[in-house]
Amino acid sequence: MDDDAATEILAATYRALCDRGYADVTLGDIAAEAETSKGLIHYYYDDKETLFAAFLDFLYDRYTEQVGSVAGETPRGRLVALFETVLADGEGTAGEQLRTAMLAANAQAPCDDAIRTRLARFDEYLLDRVESIVADGVEVGEFDDEVDPAVAAEFLVTAIYGAHTRRATADRSSDRLAETMTHFAERHLVADGPTEVPS
Amino acid sequence: MDDDAATEILAATYRALCDRGYADVTLGDIAAEAETSKGLIHYYYDDKETLFAAFLDFLYDRYTEQVGSVAGETPRGRLVALFETVLADGEGTAGEQLRTAMLAANAQAPCDDAIRTRLARFDEYLLDRVESIVADGVEVGEFDDEVDPAVAAEFLVTAIYGAHTRRATADRSSDRLAETMTHFAERHLVADGPTEVPS
Repeated sequence: MDDDAATEILAATYRALCDRGYADVTLGDIAAEAETSKGLIHYYYDDKETLFAAFLDFLYDRYTEQVGSVAGETPRGRLVALFETVLADGEGTAGEQLRTAMLAANAQAPCDDAIRTRLARFDEYLLDRVESIVADGVEVGEFDDEVDPAVAAEFLVTAIYGAHTRRATADRSSDRLAETMTHFAERHLVADGPTEVPS
Repeated sequence: MDDDAATEILAATYRALCDRGYADVTLGDIAAEAETSKGLIHYYYDDKETLFAAFLDFLYDRYTEQVGSVAGETPRGRLVALFETVLADGEGTAGEQLRTAMLAANAQAPCDDAIRTRLARFDEYLLDRVESIVADGVEVGEFDDEVDPAVAAEFLVTAIYGAHTRRATADRSSDRLAETMTHFAERHLVADGPTEVPS
Protein backbone atom coordinates (compact mmCIF):
# COMPACT_ATOMS: atom_id res chain seq x y z
CA MET A 1 0.00 0.00 0.00
CA ASP A 2 1.91 3.02 -1.17
CA ASP A 3 1.44 6.12 -3.26
CA ASP A 4 2.43 4.21 -6.36
CA ALA A 5 -0.58 1.94 -5.93
CA ALA A 6 -2.88 4.96 -5.60
CA THR A 7 -1.39 6.49 -8.74
CA GLU A 8 -1.68 3.20 -10.61
CA ILE A 9 -5.40 3.16 -9.79
CA LEU A 10 -5.78 6.63 -11.34
CA ALA A 11 -3.81 5.59 -14.44
CA ALA A 12 -6.04 2.52 -14.72
CA THR A 13 -9.12 4.77 -14.38
CA TYR A 14 -7.87 6.75 -17.36
CA ARG A 15 -7.33 3.62 -19.48
CA ALA A 16 -10.69 2.15 -18.47
CA LEU A 17 -12.50 5.42 -19.28
CA CYS A 18 -10.80 5.70 -22.67
CA ASP A 19 -11.74 2.09 -23.47
CA ARG A 20 -15.29 1.93 -22.18
CA GLY A 21 -16.57 5.48 -21.99
CA TYR A 22 -17.77 7.21 -18.89
CA ALA A 23 -21.31 5.91 -18.81
CA ASP A 24 -20.26 2.26 -18.89
CA VAL A 25 -17.18 2.11 -16.70
CA THR A 26 -17.48 0.41 -13.30
CA LEU A 27 -15.18 0.10 -10.29
CA GLY A 28 -14.80 -3.55 -11.30
CA ASP A 29 -13.43 -2.47 -14.70
CA ILE A 30 -10.97 -0.14 -13.04
CA ALA A 31 -9.85 -2.84 -10.59
CA ALA A 32 -9.34 -5.28 -13.47
CA GLU A 33 -7.38 -2.67 -15.45
CA ALA A 34 -5.19 -1.94 -12.41
CA GLU A 35 -4.82 -5.67 -11.67
CA THR A 36 -6.00 -5.05 -8.16
CA SER A 37 -9.19 -5.50 -6.12
CA LYS A 38 -12.20 -3.27 -5.57
CA GLY A 39 -11.24 -3.49 -1.88
CA LEU A 40 -7.89 -1.81 -2.51
CA ILE A 41 -9.58 0.93 -4.52
CA HIS A 42 -11.89 1.55 -1.58
CA TYR A 43 -8.88 1.64 0.74
CA TYR A 44 -7.55 4.68 -1.12
CA TYR A 45 -10.78 6.26 -2.29
CA ASP A 46 -13.88 6.29 -0.10
CA ASP A 47 -16.33 6.31 -2.97
CA LYS A 48 -16.62 6.81 -6.71
CA GLU A 49 -16.86 10.58 -6.27
CA THR A 50 -13.60 10.79 -4.33
CA LEU A 51 -11.87 8.57 -6.88
CA PHE A 52 -13.21 10.69 -9.65
CA ALA A 53 -12.09 13.98 -8.10
CA ALA A 54 -8.57 12.53 -7.59
CA PHE A 55 -8.65 11.27 -11.17
CA LEU A 56 -9.39 14.76 -12.50
CA ASP A 57 -6.44 16.14 -10.50
CA PHE A 58 -4.24 13.41 -11.99
CA LEU A 59 -5.44 14.30 -15.48
CA TYR A 60 -4.95 18.02 -14.81
CA ASP A 61 -1.29 17.51 -13.87
CA ARG A 62 -0.56 15.66 -17.11
CA TYR A 63 -2.55 18.17 -19.17
CA THR A 64 -0.83 21.25 -17.75
CA GLU A 65 2.57 19.62 -18.15
CA GLN A 66 1.93 19.17 -21.87
CA VAL A 67 0.14 22.43 -22.55
CA GLY A 68 2.73 24.29 -20.46
CA SER A 69 5.67 22.93 -22.41
CA VAL A 70 4.61 23.65 -26.00
CA ALA A 71 7.62 24.98 -27.84
CA GLY A 72 8.08 27.39 -30.71
CA GLU A 73 10.65 29.99 -31.66
CA THR A 74 8.11 32.80 -31.58
CA PRO A 75 4.65 33.33 -30.03
CA ARG A 76 3.06 32.56 -33.41
CA GLY A 77 4.82 29.19 -33.53
CA ARG A 78 3.94 28.48 -29.91
CA LEU A 79 0.26 29.24 -30.57
CA VAL A 80 0.13 26.81 -33.50
CA ALA A 81 1.95 24.18 -31.39
CA LEU A 82 -0.58 24.74 -28.61
CA PHE A 83 -3.51 24.17 -31.01
CA GLU A 84 -1.90 20.95 -32.20
CA THR A 85 -1.27 19.72 -28.66
CA VAL A 86 -4.65 20.54 -27.27
CA LEU A 87 -6.61 19.30 -30.30
CA ALA A 88 -4.59 16.11 -30.72
CA ASP A 89 -6.42 12.79 -31.00
CA GLY A 90 -3.78 10.31 -29.94
CA GLU A 91 -3.38 8.34 -26.75
CA GLY A 92 -1.86 10.24 -23.84
CA THR A 93 -2.14 13.63 -25.57
CA ALA A 94 -3.38 16.79 -23.88
CA GLY A 95 -6.27 16.73 -26.35
CA GLU A 96 -7.36 13.33 -25.10
CA GLN A 97 -6.96 14.45 -21.48
CA LEU A 98 -9.16 17.49 -22.01
CA ARG A 99 -11.75 15.44 -23.88
CA THR A 100 -11.84 12.79 -21.15
CA ALA A 101 -12.41 15.47 -18.53
CA MET A 102 -15.15 17.06 -20.64
CA LEU A 103 -16.97 13.78 -21.18
CA ALA A 104 -16.88 13.07 -17.51
CA ALA A 105 -18.14 16.58 -16.85
CA ASN A 106 -21.21 16.11 -18.97
CA ALA A 107 -22.14 13.11 -16.92
CA GLN A 108 -21.32 14.51 -13.48
CA ALA A 109 -20.78 18.23 -13.32
CA PRO A 110 -24.33 19.58 -13.14
CA CYS A 111 -24.80 18.16 -9.68
CA ASP A 112 -21.32 18.05 -8.21
CA ASP A 113 -19.40 21.13 -7.08
CA ALA A 114 -16.11 19.31 -6.48
CA ILE A 115 -16.15 18.13 -10.11
CA ARG A 116 -17.23 21.49 -11.53
CA THR A 117 -14.44 23.28 -9.69
CA ARG A 118 -11.87 20.85 -11.06
CA LEU A 119 -13.17 21.14 -14.61
CA ALA A 120 -13.07 24.91 -14.42
CA ARG A 121 -9.32 24.63 -13.70
CA PHE A 122 -8.70 23.02 -17.11
CA ASP A 123 -10.50 25.94 -18.69
CA GLU A 124 -8.69 28.60 -16.66
CA TYR A 125 -5.28 27.10 -17.31
CA LEU A 126 -5.81 27.01 -21.06
CA LEU A 127 -7.27 30.52 -21.11
CA ASP A 128 -4.29 31.81 -19.18
CA ARG A 129 -1.75 30.08 -21.45
CA VAL A 130 -3.38 31.28 -24.67
CA GLU A 131 -3.73 34.84 -23.37
CA SER A 132 -0.10 34.93 -22.36
CA ILE A 133 1.11 33.65 -25.76
CA VAL A 134 -1.09 36.16 -27.62
CA ALA A 135 0.10 38.98 -25.32
CA ASP A 136 3.73 37.98 -26.03
CA GLY A 137 2.97 38.06 -29.74
CA VAL A 138 1.46 41.54 -29.52
CA GLU A 139 4.40 42.74 -27.42
CA VAL A 140 7.07 41.58 -29.86
CA GLY A 141 5.01 42.97 -32.76
CA GLU A 142 4.28 39.59 -34.31
CA PHE A 143 0.55 39.99 -33.68
CA ASP A 144 -1.47 43.09 -34.53
CA ASP A 145 -1.43 45.57 -31.67
CA GLU A 146 -5.18 46.02 -32.05
CA VAL A 147 -5.65 42.44 -30.83
CA ASP A 148 -6.92 42.31 -27.26
CA PRO A 149 -5.22 39.20 -25.79
CA ALA A 150 -8.03 38.51 -23.29
CA VAL A 151 -10.77 38.65 -25.95
CA ALA A 152 -8.73 36.65 -28.48
CA ALA A 153 -7.96 34.02 -25.81
CA GLU A 154 -11.62 33.74 -24.80
CA PHE A 155 -12.58 33.19 -28.41
CA LEU A 156 -9.80 30.72 -29.20
CA VAL A 157 -10.42 28.64 -26.08
CA THR A 158 -14.13 28.55 -26.87
CA ALA A 159 -13.28 27.28 -30.34
CA ILE A 160 -10.94 24.61 -28.87
CA TYR A 161 -13.78 23.31 -26.70
CA GLY A 162 -16.10 23.43 -29.68
CA ALA A 163 -13.67 21.45 -31.79
CA HIS A 164 -13.66 18.65 -29.23
CA THR A 165 -17.43 18.70 -28.95
CA ARG A 166 -18.02 18.66 -32.71
CA ARG A 167 -15.54 15.86 -33.08
CA ALA A 168 -17.65 13.82 -30.66
CA THR A 169 -21.10 14.83 -31.84
CA ALA A 170 -20.79 15.58 -35.53
CA ASP A 171 -17.89 13.50 -36.81
CA ARG A 172 -15.88 16.61 -37.62
CA SER A 173 -12.24 15.71 -37.81
CA SER A 174 -9.89 17.35 -35.31
CA ASP A 175 -7.27 17.81 -38.03
CA ARG A 176 -9.67 19.89 -40.07
CA LEU A 177 -10.56 21.94 -37.01
CA ALA A 178 -6.91 22.44 -35.99
CA GLU A 179 -6.29 23.72 -39.51
CA THR A 180 -9.20 26.14 -39.21
CA MET A 181 -7.81 27.43 -35.90
CA THR A 182 -4.40 27.98 -37.42
CA HIS A 183 -5.99 29.70 -40.38
CA PHE A 184 -7.77 32.05 -38.00
CA ALA A 185 -4.58 32.89 -36.15
CA GLU A 186 -2.74 33.57 -39.43
CA ARG A 187 -5.56 35.63 -40.85
CA HIS A 188 -6.61 37.68 -37.85
CA LEU A 189 -3.81 37.90 -35.34
CA VAL A 190 -0.65 38.25 -37.39
CA ALA A 191 0.45 41.88 -37.64
CA ASP A 192 1.14 42.15 -41.36
CA GLY A 193 -1.85 40.10 -42.50
CA PRO A 194 -1.95 36.57 -43.81
CA THR A 195 1.32 35.17 -45.13
CA GLU A 196 -0.09 31.75 -45.85
CA VAL A 197 -3.81 31.11 -46.06
CA PRO A 198 -4.90 27.50 -46.54
CA SER A 199 -8.53 27.29 -47.58
CA MET B 1 -54.18 7.12 -30.14
CA ASP B 2 -53.34 9.77 -32.66
CA ASP B 3 -50.38 11.78 -33.87
CA ASP B 4 -51.03 14.38 -31.22
CA ALA B 5 -50.41 11.81 -28.51
CA ALA B 6 -47.12 10.80 -30.16
CA THR B 7 -46.06 14.45 -30.37
CA GLU B 8 -47.07 15.06 -26.76
CA ILE B 9 -44.77 12.20 -25.72
CA LEU B 10 -41.88 13.90 -27.51
CA ALA B 11 -42.69 17.26 -25.92
CA ALA B 12 -42.81 15.52 -22.54
CA THR B 13 -39.43 13.90 -23.28
CA TYR B 14 -38.01 17.37 -23.83
CA ARG B 15 -39.41 18.70 -20.55
CA ALA B 16 -38.28 15.63 -18.62
CA LEU B 17 -34.76 15.87 -20.08
CA CYS B 18 -34.51 19.57 -19.28
CA ASP B 19 -35.66 18.90 -15.70
CA ARG B 20 -33.72 15.76 -14.86
CA GLY B 21 -30.79 15.60 -17.24
CA TYR B 22 -30.09 12.84 -19.66
CA ALA B 23 -28.36 10.41 -17.32
CA ASP B 24 -31.23 10.34 -14.85
CA VAL B 25 -34.36 10.42 -16.99
CA THR B 26 -36.46 7.25 -17.21
CA LEU B 27 -39.43 6.19 -19.35
CA GLY B 28 -41.47 6.47 -16.13
CA ASP B 29 -40.49 10.15 -15.82
CA ILE B 30 -41.51 10.77 -19.41
CA ALA B 31 -44.84 8.97 -18.93
CA ALA B 32 -45.54 11.04 -15.80
CA GLU B 33 -44.62 14.27 -17.60
CA ALA B 34 -46.92 13.32 -20.53
CA GLU B 35 -49.66 12.23 -18.10
CA THR B 36 -49.81 8.89 -19.88
CA SER B 37 -48.58 5.34 -19.30
CA LYS B 38 -45.35 3.58 -20.18
CA GLY B 39 -47.58 1.23 -22.19
CA LEU B 40 -48.74 4.03 -24.49
CA ILE B 41 -45.14 5.16 -24.98
CA HIS B 42 -44.26 1.62 -26.04
CA TYR B 43 -47.23 1.61 -28.41
CA TYR B 44 -45.67 4.47 -30.37
CA TYR B 45 -42.00 3.80 -29.79
CA ASP B 46 -40.63 0.26 -29.70
CA ASP B 47 -37.76 1.05 -27.37
CA LYS B 48 -35.83 3.90 -25.80
CA GLU B 49 -33.60 4.17 -28.87
CA THR B 50 -36.54 4.64 -31.23
CA LEU B 51 -38.11 7.19 -28.91
CA PHE B 52 -34.84 9.01 -28.70
CA ALA B 53 -34.30 9.13 -32.45
CA ALA B 54 -37.84 10.51 -32.90
CA PHE B 55 -37.16 13.00 -30.13
CA LEU B 56 -34.07 14.32 -31.93
CA ASP B 57 -36.11 14.78 -35.11
CA PHE B 58 -38.72 16.68 -33.09
CA LEU B 59 -35.99 18.89 -31.61
CA TYR B 60 -34.42 19.41 -35.02
CA ASP B 61 -37.68 20.74 -36.48
CA ARG B 62 -38.03 23.32 -33.73
CA TYR B 63 -34.37 24.26 -33.90
CA THR B 64 -34.30 24.81 -37.67
CA GLU B 65 -37.53 26.79 -37.50
CA GLN B 66 -35.92 29.23 -35.06
CA VAL B 67 -32.46 29.36 -36.60
CA GLY B 68 -33.99 29.65 -40.07
CA SER B 69 -36.13 32.62 -39.16
CA VAL B 70 -33.58 34.96 -37.54
CA ALA B 71 -34.23 38.44 -38.84
CA GLY B 72 -32.04 41.43 -39.46
CA GLU B 73 -31.95 44.24 -42.01
CA THR B 74 -28.52 43.25 -43.28
CA PRO B 75 -26.34 40.09 -43.13
CA ARG B 76 -24.39 41.63 -40.26
CA GLY B 77 -27.57 42.08 -38.23
CA ARG B 78 -28.75 38.58 -39.13
CA LEU B 79 -25.45 37.08 -37.98
CA VAL B 80 -25.67 38.80 -34.60
CA ALA B 81 -29.32 37.69 -34.28
CA LEU B 82 -28.26 34.14 -35.13
CA PHE B 83 -25.60 34.17 -32.37
CA GLU B 84 -28.18 35.40 -29.88
CA THR B 85 -30.72 32.75 -30.93
CA VAL B 86 -28.36 29.83 -30.94
CA LEU B 87 -26.54 30.79 -27.74
CA ALA B 88 -29.71 31.67 -25.81
CA ASP B 89 -30.26 30.15 -22.37
CA GLY B 90 -34.00 30.35 -21.98
CA GLU B 91 -36.69 27.70 -22.19
CA GLY B 92 -37.76 26.71 -25.70
CA THR B 93 -34.89 28.59 -27.37
CA ALA B 94 -32.79 27.18 -30.19
CA GLY B 95 -29.82 27.39 -27.81
CA GLU B 96 -31.54 25.08 -25.36
CA GLN B 97 -32.56 22.71 -28.17
CA LEU B 98 -28.99 22.44 -29.44
CA ARG B 99 -27.65 21.95 -25.91
CA THR B 100 -30.19 19.23 -25.17
CA ALA B 101 -29.21 17.39 -28.34
CA MET B 102 -25.51 17.73 -27.49
CA LEU B 103 -25.96 16.41 -23.97
CA ALA B 104 -27.85 13.45 -25.28
CA ALA B 105 -25.13 12.92 -27.85
CA ASN B 106 -22.41 12.65 -25.27
CA ALA B 107 -24.29 9.88 -23.58
CA GLN B 108 -25.38 7.97 -26.70
CA ALA B 109 -23.62 8.91 -29.88
CA PRO B 110 -20.37 6.96 -29.67
CA CYS B 111 -22.21 3.69 -30.07
CA ASP B 112 -25.30 4.58 -32.06
CA ASP B 113 -25.27 5.47 -35.75
CA ALA B 114 -28.92 6.60 -35.87
CA ILE B 115 -28.19 9.15 -33.16
CA ARG B 116 -24.89 10.30 -34.66
CA THR B 117 -26.53 10.88 -38.03
CA ARG B 118 -29.26 12.96 -36.44
CA LEU B 119 -26.82 15.04 -34.42
CA ALA B 120 -24.73 15.71 -37.49
CA ARG B 121 -27.83 17.31 -39.06
CA PHE B 122 -27.93 20.00 -36.36
CA ASP B 123 -24.30 20.78 -37.17
CA GLU B 124 -24.79 20.81 -40.94
CA TYR B 125 -27.85 23.03 -40.75
CA LEU B 126 -26.10 25.62 -38.62
CA LEU B 127 -22.97 25.52 -40.78
CA ASP B 128 -25.05 26.04 -43.87
CA ARG B 129 -27.00 28.97 -42.37
CA VAL B 130 -23.90 30.75 -41.09
CA GLU B 131 -22.04 30.25 -44.37
CA SER B 132 -24.97 31.62 -46.33
CA ILE B 133 -25.28 34.73 -44.12
CA VAL B 134 -21.52 35.40 -44.32
CA ALA B 135 -21.57 34.89 -48.10
CA ASP B 136 -24.47 37.37 -48.39
CA GLY B 137 -22.47 39.84 -46.31
CA VAL B 138 -19.43 39.49 -48.55
CA GLU B 139 -21.60 39.83 -51.66
CA VAL B 140 -23.24 43.08 -50.56
CA GLY B 141 -19.85 44.41 -49.43
CA GLU B 142 -20.75 44.49 -45.75
CA PHE B 143 -18.09 41.88 -44.94
CA ASP B 144 -14.52 42.01 -46.15
CA ASP B 145 -14.16 40.30 -49.53
CA GLU B 146 -11.09 38.47 -48.25
CA VAL B 147 -13.33 36.51 -45.88
CA ASP B 148 -13.88 32.94 -47.04
CA PRO B 149 -17.49 32.15 -46.00
CA ALA B 150 -16.85 28.40 -45.63
CA VAL B 151 -13.83 28.89 -43.37
CA ALA B 152 -15.48 31.65 -41.34
CA ALA B 153 -18.60 29.49 -40.90
CA GLU B 154 -16.56 26.48 -39.79
CA PHE B 155 -14.82 28.61 -37.21
CA LEU B 156 -17.95 30.36 -35.95
CA VAL B 157 -19.95 27.14 -35.64
CA THR B 158 -17.05 25.55 -33.76
CA ALA B 159 -17.08 28.48 -31.37
CA ILE B 160 -20.87 28.18 -30.91
CA TYR B 161 -20.48 24.54 -29.90
CA GLY B 162 -17.61 25.51 -27.62
CA ALA B 163 -19.70 28.21 -25.96
CA HIS B 164 -22.34 25.64 -25.05
CA THR B 165 -19.75 23.19 -23.78
CA ARG B 166 -17.92 25.77 -21.67
CA ARG B 167 -21.20 26.95 -20.24
CA ALA B 168 -21.84 23.40 -19.04
CA THR B 169 -18.32 22.49 -17.91
CA ALA B 170 -16.70 25.70 -16.81
CA ASP B 171 -19.50 28.00 -15.68
CA ARG B 172 -18.78 30.45 -18.47
CA SER B 173 -21.82 32.57 -19.08
CA SER B 174 -23.47 32.34 -22.49
CA ASP B 175 -24.03 36.10 -22.50
CA ARG B 176 -20.31 36.72 -22.18
CA LEU B 177 -19.63 34.23 -24.95
CA ALA B 178 -22.31 35.68 -27.25
CA GLU B 179 -20.66 39.06 -26.73
CA THR B 180 -17.27 37.62 -27.66
CA MET B 181 -18.75 36.10 -30.83
CA THR B 182 -20.28 39.42 -31.81
CA HIS B 183 -17.01 41.16 -31.07
CA PHE B 184 -15.24 38.72 -33.39
CA ALA B 185 -17.71 39.33 -36.19
CA GLU B 186 -17.40 43.11 -35.81
CA ARG B 187 -13.63 42.99 -35.64
CA HIS B 188 -12.80 40.44 -38.31
CA LEU B 189 -15.62 40.20 -40.80
CA VAL B 190 -16.86 43.73 -41.27
CA ALA B 191 -15.41 45.33 -44.39
CA ASP B 192 -14.33 48.68 -43.04
CA GLY B 193 -13.00 47.43 -39.73
CA PRO B 194 -14.52 47.66 -36.28
CA THR B 195 -17.16 50.32 -35.81
CA GLU B 196 -17.92 49.37 -32.26
CA VAL B 197 -15.59 47.19 -30.22
CA PRO B 198 -16.78 46.20 -26.75
CA SER B 199 -13.89 44.87 -24.68
